[in-house]
This record gives sequence, C-alpha cells and structure tokens, in this order.
Amino acid sequence: MTSILADSSKSMKTDRNTYVGNRFVCVKNPHLNSMDEDILYHLDLGTKTHNLPAMFGDVKFVCVRGSSNRMKAFAFIRKELGLEGSEEDMQDICTGTDRYCMYKTGPVLSINHGMGIPSISIMLHELIKLLYYAKCYDVTIIRIGTSGGIGIEPGSIVITDTAVDSFFKPQFEQIILDTVVTQNTELDKELAEELLKCSKEVPDFPTLIGHTMCTYDFYEGQGRLDGALCSFSNEKKLDYLQRAYKTGIRNIEMESSVFAAMCGLCGLKAAVVCVTLLNRLECDQINLPREVLLEYQQHPQKLISIFIKKRLGRYNPK
Amino acid sequence: MTSILADSSKSMKTDRNTYVGNRFVCVKNPHLNSMDEDILYHLDLGTKTHNLPAMFGDVKFVCVRGSSNRMKAFAFIRKELGLEGSEEDMQDICTGTDRYCMYKTGPVLSINHGMGIPSISIMLHELIKLLYYAKCYDVTIIRIGTSGGIGIEPGSIVITDTAVDSFFKPQFEQIILDTVVTQNTELDKELAEELLKCSKEVPDFPTLIGHTMCTYDFYEGQGRLDGALCSFSNEKKLDYLQRAYKTGIRNIEMESSVFAAMCGLCGLKAAVVCVTLLNRLECDQINLPREVLLEYQQHPQKLISIFIKKRLGRYNPK
Repeated sequence: MTSILADSSKSMKTDRNTYVGNRFVCVKNPHLNSMDEDILYHLDLGTKTHNLPAMFGDVKFVCVRGSSNRMKAFAFIRKELGLEGSEEDMQDICTGTDRYCMYKTGPVLSINHGMGIPSISIMLHELIKLLYYAKCYDVTIIRIGTSGGIGIEPGSIVITDTAVDSFFKPQFEQIILDTVVTQNTELDKELAEELLKCSKEVPDFPTLIGHTMCTYDFYEGQGRLDGALCSFSNEKKLDYLQRAYKTGIRNIEMESSVFAAMCGLCGLKAAVVCVTLLNRLECDQINLPREVLLEYQQHPQKLISIFIKKRLGRYNPK
Repeated sequence: MTSILADSSKSMKTDRNTYVGNRFVCVKNPHLNSMDEDILYHLDLGTKTHNLPAMFGDVKFVCVRGSSNRMKAFAFIRKELGLEGSEEDMQDICTGTDRYCMYKTGPVLSINHGMGIPSISIMLHELIKLLYYAKCYDVTIIRIGTSGGIGIEPGSIVITDTAVDSFFKPQFEQIILDTVVTQNTELDKELAEELLKCSKEVPDFPTLIGHTMCTYDFYEGQGRLDGALCSFSNEKKLDYLQRAYKTGIRNIEMESSVFAAMCGLCGLKAAVVCVTLLNRLECDQINLPREVLLEYQQHPQKLISIFIKKRLGRYNPK
C-alpha cells in the first residue's frame, strides 16, 4: 500500500507536510470484503478494469457540483494551481457513461452529482468506494452549488454548518428496507471556519456560516408559488420561510443532508459552499440576467480556489 | 387559442382523428394567473422569451428518460415516423442550460430527467407548465427507463400499473411546508393495456404489467449489499425483496411515484415502461457486457416506437 501511495502521489510530494493526520477514507459495509470485483456502475469504473490506487491515490480534494458543464468550468483550478498541460487535455474519466462526469487535476478531483438527494447519493456511494479502493487519506470534499437564500443578499455565499430537513431538524432520514434510519447532518466545523477565513481574501461578495435546509422538491417543497402545483397562499409561504430564518437557516438547496451524513460516516472532511441566486423572502423566480447568474456561480469557485491554494502552500495574494 | 393550435399543429392534421376527447394539460396553481412572465429556469425557456404555443402546441407524446445521451438515441423515432430531416438537425431545445436536454420530432417531445424523484419532479413542474402554456391537449407521457427486476428475467419490460413506496404502499408522500401530503400513484390502466398489446409485436423479450417500487436510494434503499454503506445481512435483503415480490412488485426504480402523482393531477395520460437489467433476487451488481446492456435498453424504445406509430396510424408490421 505504501508503495502505491508513494507512486501515485508524486505530484503531491513537496506538499505532503501540509497534511496533518492520516485519516483513510473508509466504507461501512462488511460485504465489500467478500466481493471479487466491484463495478462502480454509474461511474463506469471497476476494481478489476481500472488501477484505482494509481489513478486516484493522490487525491486530497474532491469538488462536487450539480451540473457537468459547470464541472468543466472548474478546470480553471488547473491553471490556478500552476499544473502543467492545457485545459483541452483534461478528459472526462467517466467517458463510458452519461450519468456523471469526472475530471482530475493533480490532487483535485471534480465530479458532478445531478440534482437532488437520490442523484448525489448514488454518486457518493461510488465515489467513496473509489477513494477507499484507491487508499486515499486526509481527503477534503466540498460541494459547490447554487441555492435560494433566505433574508440575505443574492450573490452571498453560505458555508453550511449543519444541514436541516424540511421540518428544520438537523437530520437526514433514510429508509433502509422497512426501517426509517436517522443520520447526523453536521458538517466539519473547523473546515467551515477555515473556509470563512479564506473568504476574507475575496471581499467582493458577503460570505457567512449558517444552516442550510435540504429539500426533496424545488417548488412546493421549498414554498415556491410558481410550480405547476401549488396548494398554499403567499402568507403561508412567508410564514414558513420566516420561521426557517429564525432557526438560523440562511439558504435552501437539495443535496446537503445526505452529503453531510454519508461523508461524516466515511471519514471525509466535508463542506457545503453555496451561492444564493435570489432572496426567497422577496421572490421565487430566478430571473437575473445570464451574465449576473454566471458571475454569481463563480463566487464559490473563487473561494474554493483560494482554499486549495492555501492548503497546498501555493497562495500568492495579488 | 384556436388559431394558435391550428397553426402549431399542422404536422398533425392528417392524424387528428386518431385522438379522441379533448383533455387539455392543466396546472393546479392559482398563482400562475397573476404572473406577468414565467421563466422555466431549468429548461431555459420562458413565456415572454419563447412562443410556446408555436413551438410545442402540436405535442401529443412526451418521452422522458434518465440520461441525456440516451435521449439522443431516441432520435431514431424521427426516422421510424418517416419525418423529414436528418438526425443532425435535431437540436437540443434547452441549449442554454446543462440541467436537461429536450428534442422535438413532430408530435413527439423527448426530454431527460436525471436520476431520482427530486430531479424528475423539477423537470415535470416545468414541462407541465410548458405544455399548459402551449395549450397542448390529449397528451400521452411515457417514462422509458432501466430498473432492477424482482423474480423476472433480465431484459424483460415491466409496464407499471401502480408505483409503490419503500413500504409497498401505493402512494407518494411529499412534504409541503410543514405538512406531509399523500398522493395517488396509479397509472393509466387503459394505456398500460394498450402498451401490453403493442408488446405482442416484439416477441423477442417478455413484457408484463406489474407494480413498480420507487425508492430514494439506489443502494441501501433498494436492499443492495454493495454500497459504501450497508447495515443489513443478505438474509434480511432477500426477505425484503421476496415480500415485495409477493405484493406484486416486479421492478424497482427511482422516479415512478412522483411521475404518476404529478401527471395524474395535471391531465396527462401517463405510463412507466422500464427494462430490467438484473434480477435482484440473484445479484446486486449490474455486470452484463456493455453490448447486452445497450441491447436491453433498446427494448422499451422499440415498444414505444410501435405504440406511437400505431397511434399515428403509421404502423406497418414487417
């Protein structure tokens, strides 16, 4: 194992000392030991068909985002980190499937997760197994996303301390066979503080730490009045969102709870960093000009870029 | 309105008589009337920026599938229906977004929905509004997908009569504000029978009508032993799946319940037609050769092609 890690992490050699501890990514499944082969179906990778330690053993940062096109945009980290090669030679690792796209730039792995808890959960099961088979350790995983803000200026970044459900409870309920299992959704507090500290370097947009509500639905489930179905009044909607605000919720999205739960169980230090595209106390529709939306979506990307460069000892403030 | 329909449905003129009734796609949301503009954000379409009746008024069939690449594969329907133009000129209508892809071929609209209830639910809210604004009527919508079979031969097609939840109940539970709302998940019985009848034309794979279990998770939530997390034994798994089989469940997927609920509420005749990629009583991993998987995925496509051609009076058995 040691030799594999040494082989695969050449590009990280000079930065090794910046990593403290030695926390391997783990799985919580005794059945995996008895499997001769594990096919990571939705990633089009497998333990027999791919040398996962050689391909991924040096991964220290995993950036996950909703859509695949925006993953390509993250290729800029390559340039930012001063790694060799052009953007063009960054190939999608999951070419054999159209479910997810994955890119690797030195110690940074980027993968998209689609929309909603089920979609990110499939990706996370297979990603965590991948990192486990690749014998990765001290891995930080960050979800970079968009969200609806509550009571804060659009364009703000919310770093999640705890993901909460639609009843404002800090938990993720999962149905396993016939049973409802409740899991913890707290995220890594030190990592959140470290990210907040990084945000001081990009003062052009506000960044704060807060609770994030994670829902199963974008329309009625988030109190929107503009879906194909709506069974409540504007007053009921505002009452709900204001109560959410009072409990410390600052934004709403659709993946954070299962992300926090699964990463916490499997030894990944995890953060959720989302920009808000609107203030839900004021409106439901996302009707900003495209250039403003694109600019907003770059806010978390800028922050994460600084964070990774700092961690790698490559940050040079301009 | 009449003139718009007449304008937009020219390509359907000769086939008009095959449609009985006059059931408009509807929304169940009084707030929409007071909106000056409706931006269908995830489709990158809007009521002010696009002439939706002209673009979509003639739609009679909507085919929805999980992934975008497989949507392109559905372009073959163009050829099958004998419509003019090459496959190359079939452009994605949702070019401004990377969330969903949409293609239109005469009266057939194809759109992908990603994986899981939240992802298909966002698409359905915006698709239903689109069909409503376009004044579409007598629309049949079919989800064509892949699934895990229970006790049936891989490659079989299951036409869903009712979608059931993880507790085998024929319902979809949705959280709206603070309340859990339960919705009906029965699909159109006549349509299911019509599809089963069409399957007699393609005798190379078995087709049956059965219940479909819709889950929020692909791994533990479907009783799989091969995820990053697993907290139960093989015996517990088999007991669960065998009990599912006894209630009439023949396959498991991740979208049918909300699809049945929303389409039922909004006046769309809906069907779920999924091929099974494995028999879950025998295994968890999808490890068939790629060419077999690709062949299996064509089974529902072949069936739907015959169904649409029959409806349009263009079916000529070879």
